[in-house]
Amino acid sequence: EIDGVRLLRRLTTLGQIGAFEGGGVCRLALTDADKAGRDWLVAEMERLGMAVHIDAIGNIWGIRAGQGAGAPVMVGSHIDSVATGGLYDGALGVLAGLEMVETLNDRGTATEAPIAVAAFTNEEGARFAPDMMGSGVYCGALDQGEMLAVTATDGMGVVGEELDRIGYRGSDAPVIPAAYLELHIEQGPVLEQEGVRIGAVTGVQGIHWTEFTVTGQTNHAGTTPMALRRDAGQVAMRIAREADAIAAGNGPPQVATVGVFELSPGLVNVVPETARLTVDLRNTDGAVLEAATARLTAFAQAVAAEAGCAVSIREMARFAPVVFDGGLVDKVEAAAQARQMSVKRMPSGAGHDAQMFAALCPTAMIFVPSENGLSHNIKEHSDPDDLAAGAQLLLDLVCTLAGA
Amino acid sequence: EIDGVRLLRRLTTLGQIGAFEGGGVCRLALTDADKAGRDWLVAEMERLGMAVHIDAIGNIWGIRAGQGAGAPVMVGSHIDSVATGGLYDGALGVLAGLEMVETLNDRGTATEAPIAVAAFTNEEGARFAPDMMGSGVYCGALDQGEMLAVTATDGMGVVGEELDRIGYRGSDAPVIPAAYLELHIEQGPVLEQEGVRIGAVTGVQGIHWTEFTVTGQTNHAGTTPMALRRDAGQVAMRIAREADAIAAGNGPPQVATVGVFELSPGLVNVVPETARLTVDLRNTDGAVLEAATARLTAFAQAVAAEAGCAVSIREMARFAPVVFDGGLVDKVEAAAQARQMSVKRMPSGAGHDAQMFAALCPTAMIFVPSENGLSHNIKEHSDPDDLAAGAQLLLDLVCTLAGA
Ligand SMILES: NC(=O)NCCC(=O)O
Ligand SMILES: NC(=O)NCCC(=O)O
Repeated sequence: EIDGVRLLRRLTTLGQIGAFEGGGVCRLALTDADKAGRDWLVAEMERLGMAVHIDAIGNIWGIRAGQGAGAPVMVGSHIDSVATGGLYDGALGVLAGLEMVETLNDRGTATEAPIAVAAFTNEEGARFAPDMMGSGVYCGALDQGEMLAVTATDGMGVVGEELDRIGYRGSDAPVIPAAYLELHIEQGPVLEQEGVRIGAVTGVQGIHWTEFTVTGQTNHAGTTPMALRRDAGQVAMRIAREADAIAAGNGPPQVATVGVFELSPGLVNVVPETARLTVDLRNTDGAVLEAATARLTAFAQAVAAEAGCAVSIREMARFAPVVFDGGLVDKVEAAAQARQMSVKRMPSGAGHDAQMFAALCPTAMIFVPSENGLSHNIKEHSDPDDLAAGAQLLLDLVCTLAGA
Repeated sequence: EIDGVRLLRRLTTLGQIGAFEGGGVCRLALTDADKAGRDWLVAEMERLGMAVHIDAIGNIWGIRAGQGAGAPVMVGSHIDSVATGGLYDGALGVLAGLEMVETLNDRGTATEAPIAVAAFTNEEGARFAPDMMGSGVYCGALDQGEMLAVTATDGMGVVGEELDRIGYRGSDAPVIPAAYLELHIEQGPVLEQEGVRIGAVTGVQGIHWTEFTVTGQTNHAGTTPMALRRDAGQVAMRIAREADAIAAGNGPPQVATVGVFELSPGLVNVVPETARLTVDLRNTDGAVLEAATARLTAFAQAVAAEAGCAVSIREMARFAPVVFDGGLVDKVEAAAQARQMSVKRMPSGAGHDAQMFAALCPTAMIFVPSENGLSHNIKEHSDPDDLAAGAQLLLDLVCTLAGA
């Protein structure tokens, strides 16, 4: 049996690193706060007797040796956060892994296969796009050299240089796990609304991030007739509204989000010369998602041309929908039922490191409920009993998979 | 006859203060660059033998004594710029005043009435709203105490404190001029398109600046179904698009500009919690302008409510349309004809310090053409001959009005 209080203590300890008033955390990837979180995590792994590894993109994994020498059973997630994040997104999956190892240590329980607990670099994609960067490189879905060269969305910092700066550019080679499991908060409203404790995650929807930069002509807001304008801002707003219309037209599960929108020069009485926006489109159906992105980029080109503006379109992330291993999802469901926990098979709306492992080894995820479905919000909260229930399932499953 | 080369030399000298690559200037009100421009201007006035005055809001005016002791004939404009401005917007009206005084000095010509050359604080409104701040306070249309307390649109600096910092909070009392004349570049396309050299400005259209701040709920872009969102960004974009629709619906001369648009937290995969935008609406018909603003604010309240968001609405500027003195506009037209310059009566699309004087004394303006109608753009340009023609008319008119 895992120790729910000890799990919570670790969550709040890590949550103090990058904490701000109101209860949220800002631990953007590869910042000083991320470094402090990593230092603490590595110290915890060492205290638990794990061998710590770091690869070239800064992924950290600790290995608890098994009695055999086979591939490890890996659990993991991430400890970076968005700028206005909560305590549980990512951190839960990593710290439940530590809790699992400490429980096995306390009991003197050995496993046949080694057990690995991993924290992947920049899962959020909040500071550097794309998201799932570390696990993507680990699993070979993203090119390591390209990712090391990515510049921050605010222009401040490059992945490789920031890894050097915080001392987390390692040289260990990734190992292919025997299986990968990730515990995560749902970050959505479904489990809470249906009164179910555990989500047995069947897969992750596809994610397309696209950046549009529109260039028009700056001019005087009072003297320039509407017909003579080349207003980059209004073109960008039409693109943003079209993204919303696509989501409405497709219906659930299609979602569309414009999270970044900037005008330059950004003055009350000056027609904007340039506008930059990002659009996040997601769907569980890969073909529908491709069509949505194609419709949006065609629309952007047409309205820019119509308004005498230029538009440049950059693919920030293109992740196809992922289906998890059916046999492993069954095991998650069965493990929950064995503990008398209510359980529901469901897809994930958020991207997760697990989706990168799905092509590499049998992979599945466990969700626990999020209060009011809130995440990427400082009010993100989950019930301590639900957190402990999820960690317990993780331990139960790993004991089965690694042979305790 | 004025000296067009000397006028141009002064324009390029002042244009080096706050200059940036590509030929533009950034001399935002009450910055270090504005202080450097003011210092240079005051030194020029003193070199020309003028008595320099500064009032509590930092307006500067130099007086060339007349033979009589009556009210001065005033010419003026401003030397602040937008962030990406050109050499002529504002500077022309002030430096043509200096050129006029130097010409009179060189000839030893005395006038009956004193002549004043003025540079008003923060005409642009780019750093502090509203625009025409200094002339508005000078003429009593804006409250001095309120204006001294205005915070910069980027939150960095307060008018009164910035005046103290740059040493331009004076104590001289404004004088009511016998007449006010302002030479300015058109900043629009009309004169160039019609091949006319001089605009005899009949008045200034009304200007309404409104700031909308929308507050919704930050949440996860992947897990939050569209129906459960309270997306401040999409509400703000609907307001921006409605402003554009109002302009299209009203037809010319209605213009609408969204120059400022900001999202927070501003991350790709986070539904925005707050959005801030400004709308600049202008019309020569005061009633139509009032109706446009009323329609926009009602729309903003309705769409915010529909989306579960709150909206706060702030009036940044409310200036009614202004009609200049018919007799003085006739004199501008006649003076141009006397010099064989083509001339056209026309309204102004931009706000100007002159509009504040219209209620105080006979007021008029002279426009010269803007190449491609560009202004608030580093490519702003006017033909040197046109600049000299405008300055010549200013001198001719002041000689008549002040009794040379
Ligand atoms: N789980 C999570 O919040 N991942 C961030 C990547 C995304 O879904 O945008
Ligand atoms: N002339 C000029 O550019 N004034 C600035 C005020 C405005 O019209 O927005």
